[in-house]
Amino acid sequence: MAKKASSRLEWRINVPDGTSKVLEPESGAVGKIWVGLKGCMGIIVLKVWRVLENAWHIGVADPRKVIHCIKVGLALSIVSLFYYMRPLYDDFGGNAMWAVMTVVVVFEYTVGATFYKCINRVIATFLAGALGVGIHLVAEQSGDQLKPIILGISVFLFASAATFSRFIPSVKARFDYGAMIFILTFSLVSVSGYRVVELFELAHLRLSTIAIGTSLCILVTMLFCPVWAGCELHHLIHQNMEKLADSLDGCVTEYFKENGTEKDLNKKMQGYKCVLNSKAAEESMANFARWEPTHGRFNFRHPWKQYLKIGASLRNCAYCIETLNSCISSEIQAPPCLRKHFSNKCMKASSYSINVLKELVITIVKMKKSSNIDVKVAEMNFAVEELEDALKSLPTTHFIATTTGEESTKAKAEGVEGSEHPSPIMKVLPLVKVVSLMVEIATRIGGVVNAVEELARLAEFKAAKDGKPKQNQPTDKPVAGH
Amino acid sequence: MAKKASSRLEWRINVPDGTSKVLEPESGAVGKIWVGLKGCMGIIVLKVWRVLENAWHIGVADPRKVIHCIKVGLALSIVSLFYYMRPLYDDFGGNAMWAVMTVVVVFEYTVGATFYKCINRVIATFLAGALGVGIHLVAEQSGDQLKPIILGISVFLFASAATFSRFIPSVKARFDYGAMIFILTFSLVSVSGYRVVELFELAHLRLSTIAIGTSLCILVTMLFCPVWAGCELHHLIHQNMEKLADSLDGCVTEYFKENGTEKDLNKKMQGYKCVLNSKAAEESMANFARWEPTHGRFNFRHPWKQYLKIGASLRNCAYCIETLNSCISSEIQAPPCLRKHFSNKCMKASSYSINVLKELVITIVKMKKSSNIDVKVAEMNFAVEELEDALKSLPTTHFIATTTGEESTKAKAEGVEGSEHPSPIMKVLPLVKVVSLMVEIATRIGGVVNAVEELARLAEFKAAKDGKPKQNQPTDKPVAGH
Repeated sequence: MAKKASSRLEWRINVPDGTSKVLEPESGAVGKIWVGLKGCMGIIVLKVWRVLENAWHIGVADPRKVIHCIKVGLALSIVSLFYYMRPLYDDFGGNAMWAVMTVVVVFEYTVGATFYKCINRVIATFLAGALGVGIHLVAEQSGDQLKPIILGISVFLFASAATFSRFIPSVKARFDYGAMIFILTFSLVSVSGYRVVELFELAHLRLSTIAIGTSLCILVTMLFCPVWAGCELHHLIHQNMEKLADSLDGCVTEYFKENGTEKDLNKKMQGYKCVLNSKAAEESMANFARWEPTHGRFNFRHPWKQYLKIGASLRNCAYCIETLNSCISSEIQAPPCLRKHFSNKCMKASSYSINVLKELVITIVKMKKSSNIDVKVAEMNFAVEELEDALKSLPTTHFIATTTGEESTKAKAEGVEGSEHPSPIMKVLPLVKVVSLMVEIATRIGGVVNAVEELARLAEFKAAKDGKPKQNQPTDKPVAGH
Repeated sequence: MAKKASSRLEWRINVPDGTSKVLEPESGAVGKIWVGLKGCMGIIVLKVWRVLENAWHIGVADPRKVIHCIKVGLALSIVSLFYYMRPLYDDFGGNAMWAVMTVVVVFEYTVGATFYKCINRVIATFLAGALGVGIHLVAEQSGDQLKPIILGISVFLFASAATFSRFIPSVKARFDYGAMIFILTFSLVSVSGYRVVELFELAHLRLSTIAIGTSLCILVTMLFCPVWAGCELHHLIHQNMEKLADSLDGCVTEYFKENGTEKDLNKKMQGYKCVLNSKAAEESMANFARWEPTHGRFNFRHPWKQYLKIGASLRNCAYCIETLNSCISSEIQAPPCLRKHFSNKCMKASSYSINVLKELVITIVKMKKSSNIDVKVAEMNFAVEELEDALKSLPTTHFIATTTGEESTKAKAEGVEGSEHPSPIMKVLPLVKVVSLMVEIATRIGGVVNAVEELARLAEFKAAKDGKPKQNQPTDKPVAGH
């Protein structure tokens, strides 16, 4: 408190000194405003600078985002100039704006999202237009008095129903945008005071402008550096798998290493957090991916839903790694001699687990059935069993020695800490926790293996040719955890 | 395989029997088409029926969603009829549709989301309109040849820049919709072939129709059963807290109970899964909540961001409960006698932890500082310490007894299982895991307490009056975990 007051006092003394020098030639009030204005400008410039800096980093990290922006600009310039040329402009009249609007609203980052919006927009506009014209026809024949009532009630009913449909998860996932466009078009047709003959002409113009806008969008998004939602999802899943492997590696290395933490290792360990938070991204990408036509190695009916299951099993692993991470960073740790005893077996189990994950990454990246995943899973399970055996044999071989022999040497070496006499179970506890989490993680990696093999089955991955002549062991046998 | 084949055989025999009766009076081809058509119709009717059933359940579960749909229908009917009446219609001309469009696009479920879209729409339209008119002015003075080039380049540049700004997280969170409307309006103004004088008139009309649309939306959304994003977030957070408490309670009861699992308990235990998956919902609600004006007990500058921190700390707890849950459902369990030994202490620690969570729920629901949260946290910490002590004293008091005495009685009782001679550490292991997870959960609940107390400080919660005369202990001292 005293320190704070003194520093504030210094500041007060310094300020009049500083300002008196600057403000000598000006009057007091103007000077204050000037200083205030300068301060405000400084803050604004600083904020804008930070946003720009941020933008620069985003652009450098993923140049495809910059390319997307250029694509949007290009599509809009084309459609604008297309309608700006007089002959075309006169033909379409005020409806030219529908093409521009379609491009702005429909152009999305991924091809799948653009397709989703284009198809939804065209179908919804067509349906709502037809329905609107039909109701107009009915309303026109029932007299001038009833007409606004019929139109009002129909708008109310259809808008309410379409809005409600947006709450239904299955509709929301596929037709959310379509429902909105349906309401929009239906209301616009209803509210327009035109006669039905004019309406037909209008509908024709609007549909054709929307068709021009959507086809331009689809062309631009597919021809210039397309970003496929399916590829992104595929990439995200195997990237997350790699991050998980790195995290596991980082955690175990950190726990059993002898020196202090390296900075790189700490960053590597935090990779599992991305996996924990990628559910929403995975779901939206899987939603968009199913609208995409065949591209590269992916068919139209690629089992995108299975990727969500792999994602869920990865998250399941990540929960365990989160707990492992908090175990490792806790203050109470097992004595070094005990850790050394387990170090080898734990490192072995973790490296075999990581091998399995890496093999799965290769399976997904290459989209080929791995020929030796079964061997790697068996190795992992064997290493885990060895680890469990070591844990089982701990009390008889090492436990007593630790509780009796080590105690005295420790007490001598550490003085105060040794006098606390930690009970044997408390000494083993942190290590037991880590080991049992390692076992649990291996079990959950088994779940990931199952999910990936299911994907290989559904997407009909071919077997990998890796030089080995004839394999007798079946490669698509389900793996039963550990 | 044999079973499958026989059932297929039966089916094949049955079908000709069934159809031969129906198709007697008709020709073969027509009959087949009729059956196929009937099948298709049946599937469609079934699917529609399922969607309707689903919709009915959604409506019953949250009637506010139905009210929202009625509100949308109402707002659209009002604005449609408003423009359908001739005198008004003639005045605004084709721009009437902008009001309808605004209502359709801007009306959202929560007040915050509607405000966000309204404010973004109005400001972005104004800015883009002004900029567009300015560039039109410049382009007009540089001759007919240069005009389309200047317009095209400006559309390209501004559209690209605005699209890129949508990738910057801070801009995306607040102005995503505004950036889209900016591109839209700017392109429309550029593409319109009007002269600048006409443009001013057009801009005036468009802004006024948009103003009518947005104000109608804001009125309807705020006057009829408003759904506040802030309230929803507040509700979600304390609901998640309750679910977490229930899950913890369920897990511990399940583990230490003597009889089989009840169905209710199993459902209760799964509550933590909601907490794991609510990050996206929390973030979007917090984003919308900051646009909301003062309502009920929430000020305009209510610290919504702190709710996200509470949510994160709850998720932190949920990860641990997830691991606890998998421990409990694993096959290998500690022997009953050992479990009984810990049962009381574990139940005590969990019930005190649950008490803390419930007290926090009350703090958040009532928005009043709890006077006895410190006591409850102290009780929890004490119970956890007792549990740890029990674990520490286990080897000396119980461990040896288990390894020597119990073994023989168990071997007699269970025959085969006893002959496996499970090592003492493996017997204690499951229990040790559960206990250490209980300790970890208590630590993480300490994190939740800190986050809630920070919220109480930021939102200036008043102290609760609960009959106790004068409290000497300070209530806003930070709680240092456990």
